[in-house]
Amino acid sequence: MDKRYFGNQLDHTTQQPLRRTLVPMGNLMNQVKIQSSKFKSKYLKCISLFAFLLLTFDFVLAQQATWIWYPGDYEIWLSNKMQNRRTERGSFFPPFWKLDSHYPLMDFHKVFDVKSPETIELFVEGKYNVKLDGKPLEGTPTKVTIPAGKHKINIKVFNQQYVPAIYLKGKSIVSDSSWLVTYEDKEWIDETGKVSDQSGTTWLKAGYWNFDKPTARPSQVQLPVRAQRAVKTTKKGNALLADFGKETFGFIKLHGLKGKGNLTIYYGESQEEALSTTHGETLDRLQVNRPSKRDSVMELSKAFRYVNIIADPAVTYDSVSMLYEYAPVTVRGDFRCSDDLINKIYDVSKYTFELNTREFFIDGIKRDRWIWSGDAYQSYLMNYYLYFDNPTVERTLVALRGKDPVTSHINTIMDYTFYWFIGIYDYYLYTGDTKFIQQYYPRMQSLMEYVLSRRNKNGMVEGLSGDWVFIDWAEGLSKKGEVSFEQLLFARSLEAMAISANIAGDATNGAKYQQLATDLKSKIFSTYWNEGKQALVHSRIDGVPTDHVTRYANMFAIFFNWLNDAQKQGVKQNVLLNKDVPKITTPYMRFYELEALAAMGEQAYVLKEMKDYWGGMLNLGATSFWEEYNPSKQGVEHLAMYGRPFGKSLCHAWGASPIYLLGKYYLGVKPTAPGYETYVIEPSLGGLQWMEGKVPTPHGQVTMYVSTNNIKVKSDGGIGTLRLKSASMPVVEGAQVRSKGDGVYEVTIEKGKEYSINYKSI
Amino acid sequence: MDKRYFGNQLDHTTQQPLRRTLVPMGNLMNQVKIQSSKFKSKYLKCISLFAFLLLTFDFVLAQQATWIWYPGDYEIWLSNKMQNRRTERGSFFPPFWKLDSHYPLMDFHKVFDVKSPETIELFVEGKYNVKLDGKPLEGTPTKVTIPAGKHKINIKVFNQQYVPAIYLKGKSIVSDSSWLVTYEDKEWIDETGKVSDQSGTTWLKAGYWNFDKPTARPSQVQLPVRAQRAVKTTKKGNALLADFGKETFGFIKLHGLKGKGNLTIYYGESQEEALSTTHGETLDRLQVNRPSKRDSVMELSKAFRYVNIIADPAVTYDSVSMLYEYAPVTVRGDFRCSDDLINKIYDVSKYTFELNTREFFIDGIKRDRWIWSGDAYQSYLMNYYLYFDNPTVERTLVALRGKDPVTSHINTIMDYTFYWFIGIYDYYLYTGDTKFIQQYYPRMQSLMEYVLSRRNKNGMVEGLSGDWVFIDWAEGLSKKGEVSFEQLLFARSLEAMAISANIAGDATNGAKYQQLATDLKSKIFSTYWNEGKQALVHSRIDGVPTDHVTRYANMFAIFFNWLNDAQKQGVKQNVLLNKDVPKITTPYMRFYELEALAAMGEQAYVLKEMKDYWGGMLNLGATSFWEEYNPSKQGVEHLAMYGRPFGKSLCHAWGASPIYLLGKYYLGVKPTAPGYETYVIEPSLGGLQWMEGKVPTPHGQVTMYVSTNNIKVKSDGGIGTLRLKSASMPVVEGAQVRSKGDGVYEVTIEKGKEYSINYKSI
Repeated sequence: MDKRYFGNQLDHTTQQPLRRTLVPMGNLMNQVKIQSSKFKSKYLKCISLFAFLLLTFDFVLAQQATWIWYPGDYEIWLSNKMQNRRTERGSFFPPFWKLDSHYPLMDFHKVFDVKSPETIELFVEGKYNVKLDGKPLEGTPTKVTIPAGKHKINIKVFNQQYVPAIYLKGKSIVSDSSWLVTYEDKEWIDETGKVSDQSGTTWLKAGYWNFDKPTARPSQVQLPVRAQRAVKTTKKGNALLADFGKETFGFIKLHGLKGKGNLTIYYGESQEEALSTTHGETLDRLQVNRPSKRDSVMELSKAFRYVNIIADPAVTYDSVSMLYEYAPVTVRGDFRCSDDLINKIYDVSKYTFELNTREFFIDGIKRDRWIWSGDAYQSYLMNYYLYFDNPTVERTLVALRGKDPVTSHINTIMDYTFYWFIGIYDYYLYTGDTKFIQQYYPRMQSLMEYVLSRRNKNGMVEGLSGDWVFIDWAEGLSKKGEVSFEQLLFARSLEAMAISANIAGDATNGAKYQQLATDLKSKIFSTYWNEGKQALVHSRIDGVPTDHVTRYANMFAIFFNWLNDAQKQGVKQNVLLNKDVPKITTPYMRFYELEALAAMGEQAYVLKEMKDYWGGMLNLGATSFWEEYNPSKQGVEHLAMYGRPFGKSLCHAWGASPIYLLGKYYLGVKPTAPGYETYVIEPSLGGLQWMEGKVPTPHGQVTMYVSTNNIKVKSDGGIGTLRLKSASMPVVEGAQVRSKGDGVYEVTIEKGKEYSINYKSI
Repeated sequence: MDKRYFGNQLDHTTQQPLRRTLVPMGNLMNQVKIQSSKFKSKYLKCISLFAFLLLTFDFVLAQQATWIWYPGDYEIWLSNKMQNRRTERGSFFPPFWKLDSHYPLMDFHKVFDVKSPETIELFVEGKYNVKLDGKPLEGTPTKVTIPAGKHKINIKVFNQQYVPAIYLKGKSIVSDSSWLVTYEDKEWIDETGKVSDQSGTTWLKAGYWNFDKPTARPSQVQLPVRAQRAVKTTKKGNALLADFGKETFGFIKLHGLKGKGNLTIYYGESQEEALSTTHGETLDRLQVNRPSKRDSVMELSKAFRYVNIIADPAVTYDSVSMLYEYAPVTVRGDFRCSDDLINKIYDVSKYTFELNTREFFIDGIKRDRWIWSGDAYQSYLMNYYLYFDNPTVERTLVALRGKDPVTSHINTIMDYTFYWFIGIYDYYLYTGDTKFIQQYYPRMQSLMEYVLSRRNKNGMVEGLSGDWVFIDWAEGLSKKGEVSFEQLLFARSLEAMAISANIAGDATNGAKYQQLATDLKSKIFSTYWNEGKQALVHSRIDGVPTDHVTRYANMFAIFFNWLNDAQKQGVKQNVLLNKDVPKITTPYMRFYELEALAAMGEQAYVLKEMKDYWGGMLNLGATSFWEEYNPSKQGVEHLAMYGRPFGKSLCHAWGASPIYLLGKYYLGVKPTAPGYETYVIEPSLGGLQWMEGKVPTPHGQVTMYVSTNNIKVKSDGGIGTLRLKSASMPVVEGAQVRSKGDGVYEVTIEKGKEYSINYKSI
């Protein structure tokens, strides 16, 4: 572990940086109780009184200070930094969409009421001033004494390069998310010196993360690293091939580098790529000129399993190792079952997802190392079943959205704009967090305004000049005209807007968005549903619906639950299970295809598909899952994409979807009300003998074991409904079993209780 | 002169940085002709052929390379830098409005067709890549060889701290304003590697200025300086008072500073301020700790005439001097006359304006050192009669506007938004430049949309929450309700929009803005014109026009020429010359008051007022003109403002308006068509015996001498109309005199001819 750091560790119990608001009396009592657990309860009264006194004199619970900034600005700045680290054969390779910037000038303030004078220490990123009760203090003080009583502290910061940020710590006064910030304080004075009333100024609550030490400057952020060695090295002439055993990511370190001349490191996700000095995607060229040995760490972290190091004869080094770079998130979900291949698929999915979870959820670690909304959308969902790390979801959403004005779709892709909206709805559903929506509703609105302004005369969206209609990587896929898939995502986005508007207190627009969604949904079915084909057709071109059927709109219609039972069965038989409908060759759309089938209870089929498809990659030696996998390809064909022999990413986040499928559709845990206040557990073995695992929730986790005759469940919070199919009346101690007919039974799962249900799997 | 620099000098003949586009054949012929004027015309044919060959082989006219960037971004970045240099008693004092940023990621490209291979050198501010014909070159090349033929060069740059900028120079390939730039190149590729057609990408022509050398990096910009000594120093104990003889601006330099302890420099625009260690507005505190002598230059330039240096006994220095910091603009206008006081007023105005003309037109050099739209508007007008420096006007307009989205009025002041629009119309009128409007029309539109969205139910503007309605510094001035002055500026802004829309090719909106302007003007007269008072009243509150009359709307209505003759006379008698209407105490509004009177032919009255008012400041020892001057105040009262004893700026750009009044209404030169294609000269001595001067135009200048019986005129371009009043038929050699009746005569002034007109002044 070197001295890079990434703020402090998160408090993963709550999945939030430690709260810094005054601890309410109740909580304090809890803390005191915990600390005093070795005492007998007779001491408690006296301890409570002591705690009360402490609170009264406000010198006890020194609150947690943290670096704060304008909400969203740090995320945008950090994403700029991250997305501009990609290289291709040594050439800088940045994104092709607009990058925004932080506001360079920021005002922070808070009013404090302190019982006694208090000296605060101040740390600032940028040029700044400090005002006490509106009066500027001379110079740039690093310590300020606040007199007793009620006082307002303003700190105004200018920083063009980094995000204006402050860290402030006194006995009771600290910088935290309760501070207010604005980029436009409008604090003008009139000719007599009177300050304006500032009524027109918009103040937001400060943004923060986990930079809880004054030395943990946000501008100096670095992910943590740990040293790793190659598992095998092969020397051949002036070339050394090092194999790190599996796909990995980090900084190559050359130990004892010395001499004069050139040295090139060719990186390879495959051995073939590392050995291809002409076509490998990434490399580092060093011009060495050092008389004595010294270690060298490469400047940029890279994705690889192999490195092929070719040095001039006069350049020598002792050995090669790497610093594995990772995001400090905590694994909270788990899955294990009777099938070893599925276990292996789960483990490799988990590792694939770990590699692609960085400052943000990125698409792939070799390429593009960017934040893509469609890719990130799947990462959010996987995250809810593995890390449940809210900050990474929020950061990713904010970075994708950027700032106004909207000049193009997110990542320039129309579908990716829609995934952004839907991702926010899911975030609310899984976490119950309304703060994010309240904070970013204005940016949701302006993006939706952009979309609405680009509808055609039918109120539908089609690719206009400058829009990329992506859908999926698939040969010959038409993007022309009104594509049904895009309308589905659009309608769902309008629903997300309706819900968000209401959360943000904008009922008028909430109703407007809901009406637009309803109208569009009805138009989708009247336009695309083909009774003969029992499916939604792919598109309408020049006013005429095509008779071409693709999987995309159909599978989304299933898990959006927009089809009636007959339609669902029609789609299942005529589309999803129909080999004549063009196959999907990316894990990206396999995600939704298998989700649709699982949502219809086809767990056994999906399990087989998963073993075939992901198992197919493992058979080919995959140590992480790929951007694309077409079983019909051979040998090095698997490595090629975009017309380049090693263009394909062999570690792509969207390859990790088994995490999500196994958690949501096998363990079967899913929220039914925001933040898991209520949720269902619908376990489905799909042919497995047994499975066990954990699904994280805002309350903690749901822990399960499921076999064909027994289910064990324990949950840390929320009201759960275990819904199971059984050939006989299930038996459970200490709980009621409700029969719902058709062999379906329900048991209510309460917080903290352990349930063991005996049943007979159908 | 130290090593600070400010790019290269401008070419002040054309008032544009040297053009870098290919010199068209016609121009080349002109150049050749001029160069060959000593040859006889028989040589011309052969020279023309030579020139033609040179052009054909494109190796002759090595074009001028210059640093380029996204248009407007550098101006915004530079204004952030400049506006965050203000301090107040050592405390950082930034603006209170939103500051925007440059786009951190930028793509530059151009297609070249070269006859032979060419190696270009490349200089970049930021992390970058180079693509040749769409293919990235490895690494970050600083030299690139372009093969013969047609090739596209793309350079993509990321820079968060500074503006992404490039400088590129080969034999014929150079970076210049013909390059195209975008912040969103949308250069995505499909799975086969095919690049998108980029049809939805907006490319703009690159922005540039005068950074014509690779070493003149835009990020390192500094105004030039020159050394100046104090005219008098007085030592008293550990204090030294240095008097620099007049108001100045720059960096204090302490020579041979040595010792250990504190040293404070108290700056003063007045001696009183410098001596007030407790209430002076600006200071520098040094903690000295150096065993041997070394010179020290202060970090920030400041405004002062006096500095009062107080040092601990153990701190010594040999002497104090300063580095005078100035903008490299050229004085092109001039005025001299038979009245010495007027000459003195003109000189001090010129110096006041010089001090406030910096990277941008600022309000005052001590305070606020910011770009204020209302102040800048007057500077533009003065500039047309002194420097005619277009780049400074453009930079100031762009910096004021910032970027979308619009979140408040410019500088938060409603009137200041309107001056911005009107300033653009004037810029077009004086310079004839349509490029600026074409480039920034989208930002004009979005700002006007903001204004339109804030109209009340009567279609008028009034101060909403967060709007500052300024008008002027004047005690008891009401800003409530629908203020007539604001509606006048609004209507004029709509007219400016109508003209600009047509220039930008947006005829539909041009008509819309014109209609809005017409409607509003008619509403202004039906609402505010009070027949009894023969004046526009100040405002309408709760639907009822007040019967309070102020000067503001009335004087603007005059020089907007929106009053009929009877109304004009009414306003003149009942408002402008009426001592019961509250007096104006700022040079800011005196500017317009005197302009209104001068526009009505009251030159004699205005001359007297000028001598009283500006002469009044001179009598009080002013060496530059002030932010406010109220003749009724006494002694140090003149130094106070904003409730602070030295709060007033003693060097404010708006104090320099005699430059404008004397050029426009005494020499009487003003454009009647954009860019002085046509113009009038209406000399008016206003009681002077004689006057002479120069008025700059895009063609060069108009040079004049005027006495009571003779007028001499010479002009470098455009069609001028000399309009004079004479008691007898004027006599002029080589030109026709047209009698217009009522003792008014006209003479057409052609380019390059010298005219001497004998007449008899009325």
